[in-house]
Amino acid sequence: MKAFLIIGDGMADRPLKELNGKTPLEAAEKPFLNTLAKNGICGMIDPISPGFPPGSDVATLALLGYDALKVYTGRGALEAVGSGIEILPSDVAFRCNFATVDENMVVIDRRAGRIATSDAAKLAEAIQKALYGEEFGADVLFQNTVEHRAILRLRGPNLSTMVSNSDPAHVGRRVEKIKPLDNTVQAARTAEIANRLMEFFHKILKNHEVNREREKKGLPPANIILFRSAGKLPDITPLPLKYGVRAAVICALPLIRGVCKLAGMKPIPVEGATGSYTTDVMAKAKAAVKISESYDFILVHIKATDLASHDGKIDKKIEIIEKIDSLAGYIFENTSRDETYIAVTADHTTSTVTREHEGDPVPLVLCGPYVRTDDVTQFDERACAKGGLGRIRGKDLMPTIMNLLGKVKKYGA
Amino acid sequence: MKAFLIIGDGMADRPLKELNGKTPLEAAEKPFLNTLAKNGICGMIDPISPGFPPGSDVATLALLGYDALKVYTGRGALEAVGSGIEILPSDVAFRCNFATVDENMVVIDRRAGRIATSDAAKLAEAIQKALYGEEFGADVLFQNTVEHRAILRLRGPNLSTMVSNSDPAHVGRRVEKIKPLDNTVQAARTAEIANRLMEFFHKILKNHEVNREREKKGLPPANIILFRSAGKLPDITPLPLKYGVRAAVICALPLIRGVCKLAGMKPIPVEGATGSYTTDVMAKAKAAVKISESYDFILVHIKATDLASHDGKIDKKIEIIEKIDSLAGYIFENTSRDETYIAVTADHTTSTVTREHEGDPVPLVLCGPYVRTDDVTQFDERACAKGGLGRIRGKDLMPTIMNLLGKVKKYGA
Repeated sequence: MKAFLIIGDGMADRPLKELNGKTPLEAAEKPFLNTLAKNGICGMIDPISPGFPPGSDVATLALLGYDALKVYTGRGALEAVGSGIEILPSDVAFRCNFATVDENMVVIDRRAGRIATSDAAKLAEAIQKALYGEEFGADVLFQNTVEHRAILRLRGPNLSTMVSNSDPAHVGRRVEKIKPLDNTVQAARTAEIANRLMEFFHKILKNHEVNREREKKGLPPANIILFRSAGKLPDITPLPLKYGVRAAVICALPLIRGVCKLAGMKPIPVEGATGSYTTDVMAKAKAAVKISESYDFILVHIKATDLASHDGKIDKKIEIIEKIDSLAGYIFENTSRDETYIAVTADHTTSTVTREHEGDPVPLVLCGPYVRTDDVTQFDERACAKGGLGRIRGKDLMPTIMNLLGKVKKYGA
Repeated sequence: MKAFLIIGDGMADRPLKELNGKTPLEAAEKPFLNTLAKNGICGMIDPISPGFPPGSDVATLALLGYDALKVYTGRGALEAVGSGIEILPSDVAFRCNFATVDENMVVIDRRAGRIATSDAAKLAEAIQKALYGEEFGADVLFQNTVEHRAILRLRGPNLSTMVSNSDPAHVGRRVEKIKPLDNTVQAARTAEIANRLMEFFHKILKNHEVNREREKKGLPPANIILFRSAGKLPDITPLPLKYGVRAAVICALPLIRGVCKLAGMKPIPVEGATGSYTTDVMAKAKAAVKISESYDFILVHIKATDLASHDGKIDKKIEIIEKIDSLAGYIFENTSRDETYIAVTADHTTSTVTREHEGDPVPLVLCGPYVRTDDVTQFDERACAKGGLGRIRGKDLMPTIMNLLGKVKKYGA
């Protein structure tokens, strides 16, 4: 027995006037998702609890069966892991941006003009070199990832995630001092270290030749690193240990890949999987079926539905949903009906009107040999609300799937 | 965006033989509530959990989004706040009754013949005067509210709510000694203070001229104060702080008003709102619409459905439900469909057969611009059980509403 879980990021939505009161899922042509509904059991999931809008990292932790509100401390460490940076349980990691400030430390561009990865790599190397021999009270690693994005990792005793961001979050505001968010010595120390590093990085960056070159070309210099989302690793039991399954993930997004790696899932790289509108959904489908020989549980994550929602692009969202339909169809048609469970859901609702994550529940279909099928014949928000699974919590999904695979141990006599 | 929440106290019921197996909600003519159902999404709420019969104070705490079982310590402090008496977090407050005992301290009338508020006020004043200069180990405030009802407030260190009642709850029983309910010094002290106060009050009351006058008129003398429901303030985050909303409540009941005040809601007095059968429901509707210019969230509470249930008056309950229908209709017809959410529910089921609060779930309708409408066309216990919201807990209602108002912050990235 195998299980596939397909997650359309922010795929669920609210009824839209532009679609005569339908949601994008309701408006999309999705013959295969409807086939799953006809052959499966449907329901609604509150990723965390009714009305609670989660981030994708928090929601994915929940959908993988973890108590997300308890184990989540911030995005930094998860994104670092997803980017291939080693994080130990005691490390504190920040998400960072290469950004541009004026002489008064007012932010002019939060992404330094979406600096090319090659430029950012040179600057990160210069910073890392300059750190040798300097003493900051912690071991410091600074590494760029994609474009303006970077990770700062602090390693050592007495560090805390309870510190504020230096990123003021809006252009036209001054870079902020990092402040402790509780009264512990650990938070005070961490804030002090981070503030000293910020100044140190600024000094190195502002006179670096890469930035002089950028200015000559009329590009904004990457003269500051903004820190935010200090976090540690969530303390979770990986799925292979919890359920005895071999688990894999196909996902282009470092943050979600980080969550899945911590959950003991093997990230499978797929050519053409970009995490953006251009992502090759069918390449993901083919890869998922292919690796199913070696894995019991395979998560396929598609980001573009969320992008379309945040951009308020209804037609684009429908288009991506129809691609997800093809993906589900490919997996359905190329696996054994006697041996395969296929679940499709969203990690949260993203409204194309508010362009924000919302706390409305998401639809779920679960198709496979031994599910108790219901009368639902469509996969969408309203149809699934009538499904046989009722309304469950995100953290209940994984035990539901693993139970069908025979992987949940009986408790009691 | 605004939201109205209409709560019919004890409005939900069980099927009745007298109504050919219908509930009062099912039997009532309620065109407007049905309109809300047709245009909205329905579901069932377990105020606390399935089968758990809550008091109105506990249920209202839950419906306002709080973990009622954790924060509730007793009715005393809530009713005091609702009656306009200042309560600090460390105060312990008792609900009190003016009552009548014979020479053996056996209760003859638990309400001293529903003593007039004017008589009770004179007696309370005498007690409060006599307290000056006396030493009881705590600062003592005793104040009558309406008719036989009064509040005793103890202020000072080392007080506890873990004490029993002196009220024996039934006529023909002796007034009880107040006993500590746990092994703490605080409970022992509080019980001792309360017992001394009870005797002290008895001494003042039994010879008071108001009581001699009452006896002359053949009225039962208010010669004892019965104490019960020792409570502290629940430690809760007010709604304005939690969600950034301006919140108001229209409610004639001190207890529920107290809960709402603690939740940061502004109590709006409405002429003709009495909390009894004669209450002017339409005056409440008009006031609710009027104040909606200044508030984002408005709770309208109607007590009379619960009164009718406790009195076993089926026709009366139907009549009040039909008034609540008019109230909902007035709000529906006098607000913008694009900008307004209207929710209607009950705080609990009250059975007109058992005449008690019951643990059956209550129906909910939620109507507004972005809800995922369902097929339900009637607002009642059976129809709403088929609704798109499924079965949720009382504490999930407020996040569900606030999410639609865009007032719940995302957690995670």
